[in-house]
Amino acid sequence: MFSTLKRFLIGKPLRTEELESEKMPIWKGLPILSSDAMSSVAYGTEQILLVLAIFGSTALWYSLPITGAIIFLLTILILSYRQVTYAYPEGGGAYNVSSDNLGLYGGLVAGSALLVDYTLTVAVSSSAGVAAITSAFPALHDYSVLIAVLFVLVIMMLNLRGIRESGTIFAFPTYMFILGIVTLIVIGVGKLFFTGIPEGAPPVTSHLPQGLTLFLLLRAFSSGCAALTGVEAISDSTPNFKKPESRNAARSLAILGLLMAVLFGGVSLLAYMYHITPSGTETVLSQIAEHTFGQTLPYYYIQATTALILILAANTGFSAFPILASIMAKDQFMPRMFAVRGDRLSYSNGIILLAIGAIILIVAFQAKTEHLIPLYAIGVFLSFTLAQVGLVRRWLKDKSPGWVYKITINGAGAALSFIVLMIFAVTKFAEGAWIIIVFLPLLILFFYRIHRHYASVSKALQLDVTEDQPLKSDHVMIIPVGGVSKVVSNTIAYAKTINGEAIAFYVGFDEESVDRMEETWEKWNPNVRLVATVSRYRSVIRPLLRFIDHIEDEHNDKRQITVLVPEFMPHRWWHKVLHNQTALMIRMILLFRKDVVVSTVPFRLDQ
Amino acid sequence: MFSTLKRFLIGKPLRTEELESEKMPIWKGLPILSSDAMSSVAYGTEQILLVLAIFGSTALWYSLPITGAIIFLLTILILSYRQVTYAYPEGGGAYNVSSDNLGLYGGLVAGSALLVDYTLTVAVSSSAGVAAITSAFPALHDYSVLIAVLFVLVIMMLNLRGIRESGTIFAFPTYMFILGIVTLIVIGVGKLFFTGIPEGAPPVTSHLPQGLTLFLLLRAFSSGCAALTGVEAISDSTPNFKKPESRNAARSLAILGLLMAVLFGGVSLLAYMYHITPSGTETVLSQIAEHTFGQTLPYYYIQATTALILILAANTGFSAFPILASIMAKDQFMPRMFAVRGDRLSYSNGIILLAIGAIILIVAFQAKTEHLIPLYAIGVFLSFTLAQVGLVRRWLKDKSPGWVYKITINGAGAALSFIVLMIFAVTKFAEGAWIIIVFLPLLILFFYRIHRHYASVSKALQLDVTEDQPLKSDHVMIIPVGGVSKVVSNTIAYAKTINGEAIAFYVGFDEESVDRMEETWEKWNPNVRLVATVSRYRSVIRPLLRFIDHIEDEHNDKRQITVLVPEFMPHRWWHKVLHNQTALMIRMILLFRKDVVVSTVPFRLDQ
Repeated sequence: MFSTLKRFLIGKPLRTEELESEKMPIWKGLPILSSDAMSSVAYGTEQILLVLAIFGSTALWYSLPITGAIIFLLTILILSYRQVTYAYPEGGGAYNVSSDNLGLYGGLVAGSALLVDYTLTVAVSSSAGVAAITSAFPALHDYSVLIAVLFVLVIMMLNLRGIRESGTIFAFPTYMFILGIVTLIVIGVGKLFFTGIPEGAPPVTSHLPQGLTLFLLLRAFSSGCAALTGVEAISDSTPNFKKPESRNAARSLAILGLLMAVLFGGVSLLAYMYHITPSGTETVLSQIAEHTFGQTLPYYYIQATTALILILAANTGFSAFPILASIMAKDQFMPRMFAVRGDRLSYSNGIILLAIGAIILIVAFQAKTEHLIPLYAIGVFLSFTLAQVGLVRRWLKDKSPGWVYKITINGAGAALSFIVLMIFAVTKFAEGAWIIIVFLPLLILFFYRIHRHYASVSKALQLDVTEDQPLKSDHVMIIPVGGVSKVVSNTIAYAKTINGEAIAFYVGFDEESVDRMEETWEKWNPNVRLVATVSRYRSVIRPLLRFIDHIEDEHNDKRQITVLVPEFMPHRWWHKVLHNQTALMIRMILLFRKDVVVSTVPFRLDQ
Repeated sequence: MFSTLKRFLIGKPLRTEELESEKMPIWKGLPILSSDAMSSVAYGTEQILLVLAIFGSTALWYSLPITGAIIFLLTILILSYRQVTYAYPEGGGAYNVSSDNLGLYGGLVAGSALLVDYTLTVAVSSSAGVAAITSAFPALHDYSVLIAVLFVLVIMMLNLRGIRESGTIFAFPTYMFILGIVTLIVIGVGKLFFTGIPEGAPPVTSHLPQGLTLFLLLRAFSSGCAALTGVEAISDSTPNFKKPESRNAARSLAILGLLMAVLFGGVSLLAYMYHITPSGTETVLSQIAEHTFGQTLPYYYIQATTALILILAANTGFSAFPILASIMAKDQFMPRMFAVRGDRLSYSNGIILLAIGAIILIVAFQAKTEHLIPLYAIGVFLSFTLAQVGLVRRWLKDKSPGWVYKITINGAGAALSFIVLMIFAVTKFAEGAWIIIVFLPLLILFFYRIHRHYASVSKALQLDVTEDQPLKSDHVMIIPVGGVSKVVSNTIAYAKTINGEAIAFYVGFDEESVDRMEETWEKWNPNVRLVATVSRYRSVIRPLLRFIDHIEDEHNDKRQITVLVPEFMPHRWWHKVLHNQTALMIRMILLFRKDVVVSTVPFRLDQ
């Protein structure tokens, strides 16, 4: 029943060989992997304006140089990451690069930071997507959290079915979004060209308005940097591209950089020209679209495609997180289960973990983008820094052709990423960044402990195949019996095929039942010793555990103890409710004992 | 951890010998077992008025003769049930009496009917209790369902701790309620005596008002009969009384009858004198109390004790249901688990089942008493009828001293109960009684099927102790291995202590891993054959199941197959998350196979 439901939702299992066919050409890989970066156009400008707007309309002008600075930063990052796709065609991005060049623990820090950020990507993008919808339909505002959670669940399901199918569904919205925003910018700027800039435009000024300190300017800058998260997703997933993987990924990165500069710059420019200030109920992008088109079809097109690409951005997290988790699991930083591909060849456990984490964040922060932003981007810029430093070290070592250029690019990337990281941590600390600054080291410690555990266990379990041979041990079997029946007889027959002593163990709730049992046993006489005892607490488990301890003490822990649990198998599985509660309990409790083999001996009726 | 929580909520386990000390004297048994009947004063009158009020104030007069008829019915039932306590000191009430005199299936019908009614008792009483609270504090009205559910959960917990402790806690509210209502009646009637009946009192009339048909009068009567449910609880629980059990129970019944006649009659009288009509937000009893005392302390005392005794009435269900369920389980009509006493000597499973059923009813009917009433009382009057008919048959057979008197009483009881049952089923059918009329036969059928299942299984499993001896069978062991390690070595060592062939079974996800495994195995050479295979679907379970089938076919189902699952036991139980997922899966799936013994062979590190 459960497996039928699973088949319906997830699809039939796929063979391992079908993995290759899941790879994507540029036209499909680009939209899927870059939608996170691209979609931040929907909220990047707004995050800058949210900081500036408090200081009156003169302050709004500063959004333009800040946007410029972010686009410059973007250019450096794109150039840096193009190097990564060539150097690391197997993917893994910051984690691979860092652990390769800075040692395993450098990788651990970068990987943990990225895992946290992918989870935030899903939460932020879903929340911003819902904001695009509620801007157009304010009646839905009260259900934001619910809608965001539903989105996460749907994306999770699509990803459990496998990334290829997700691709085909998810490739178009990105193109539709780009088309929409480019049209918006062209028509918006065109209109301004013919009608002139509206009166009362915030003046271009070099005077800082009252109260707008450098600290706050930097805070506005770091808020805007949230737009840069997701740039690394393409290089993380290089192996998801069709051959030649590296070149396709590098090209995708270049296209991405160009598109983002146009979209982000255009939106910031229009916001400034239209003197738009952020509102609690309508997004900045929605205001721009309304200014340009009015409440007409094109306006709704912008809102719909914005929502779609943001949902798709959440999907970026679902592409990157499970792959990174699987690599980290193979390196024994995470539980093994994250390294196993599910029926549909996706890393199901990573997908499910990510969905849970994102839903927790959405509920905790009530699907409010501006409250999630301070937690965002720290992880990304930390991993950016580590990866770029790693590459610099690599070029210094191997001095491959063009190493001076490469070091210049990656060195600049490292320095800039680190500076942004520091600005972010300082200016956003009190607003929520402290949560990540506390949580991330704990997560790193946790992964480190897992690593140590696996290492110590695998060392301890290692076998010298040329020497260690399995050794026989002496043997005693305990058979808990509730009476005399064919089920018990079957178990005793089984016990007789095993070398060693068998003891039947009976627990009665009063003296008479014990006497009766002993009498019946003697009459039957199946050549097995019976130990019968009274339990005044009506529990079978406790006397059984005591008896096992007793047998162990008697033989100084030398003999292997097996508990053979007789189990009656009814014809229909749901008849089990009517039988075997005791057998079930015994099995469950004994599975926590490290010294006892538990065997379930089934008996079925042949009717 | 779980067991610590359980200890905290439920208390430490009790010995079976401590059972005797759970028995109750009259002063404690009466309030606990009769609170259901007694508390119906809180809603009985209201249910009558609800039907009559539609036909104007002249119709209200009919509430008095209807109350009189119900008190007459009560007298007959009390007299009938006093006979039961003497004839059946072992308790079980209608179920015992019916199965004893009308055969097992007569008992089955009576027992099923009672189980349904006890569940309704809990739902109705909790709902009415909450209504008493929300009458005094209308702000809580919106949370009625939640509060009612919480009450059920608290009562459940107290009952899981054991009936004695519940008794001490729960004895006082009944006395406080009786004191309150008696005072209310005395002061209310006294006031009327001095100030005279208010003007415009509904006239005493023999003319039926327009539209008030006999059918509707009978419907009002059957609504009021809900007040009689719970009368049988004392005779069901005769063994819960101190010795002499029968006499104490019979005395309790007599006192109960007297008290109910006074309380019920008094409340109906006051409601008539004050011209009270039912309202959606305030109960009739609350209106009477407000008329008499105003919004003073005595008014709140009445509301508080009413709520308390109704909660206590829900507790009556928790006294009677688990005992009846245990008797029916011993007679193999219900799953065995209901016949087992828990740690605290209460029948825990019955208590939990009852709580679940009552909560479902409360939620489904939104804690509205008047919507639950039509489902109520059918079961009770059906079981009343069967029990009384049973007793008549018994007296006819044994002709013990005074048999003519006994037959008269029980015959009258049977006839009246049956008439009320019919009136109830007809007049309440469309209002909801049909649910019970459909559900009850299904429940009876279900119990009957359980009975048949147990009978056929116990016959099939029976052993002839003088002949059937356990026979050895041939043996093959399959050991699923994931590589070569000390855990595997330990399992192979264990296999060697068992007579028969052992086969190690390895599943690789690609050809190389299979080749590598075969090579390592050959080098190690632990004298066990290795079968290695590739799974293209990355599943270990399916190839293993296929291999088991293959071994079975090979040997024509003659050899006993044992699957030995190697299991690594880490030092801390929560480290299990990091290991053994495959072992867990194999164990879970194989437990559904009827032909395979599953043994878990633990390996611990001795560090």
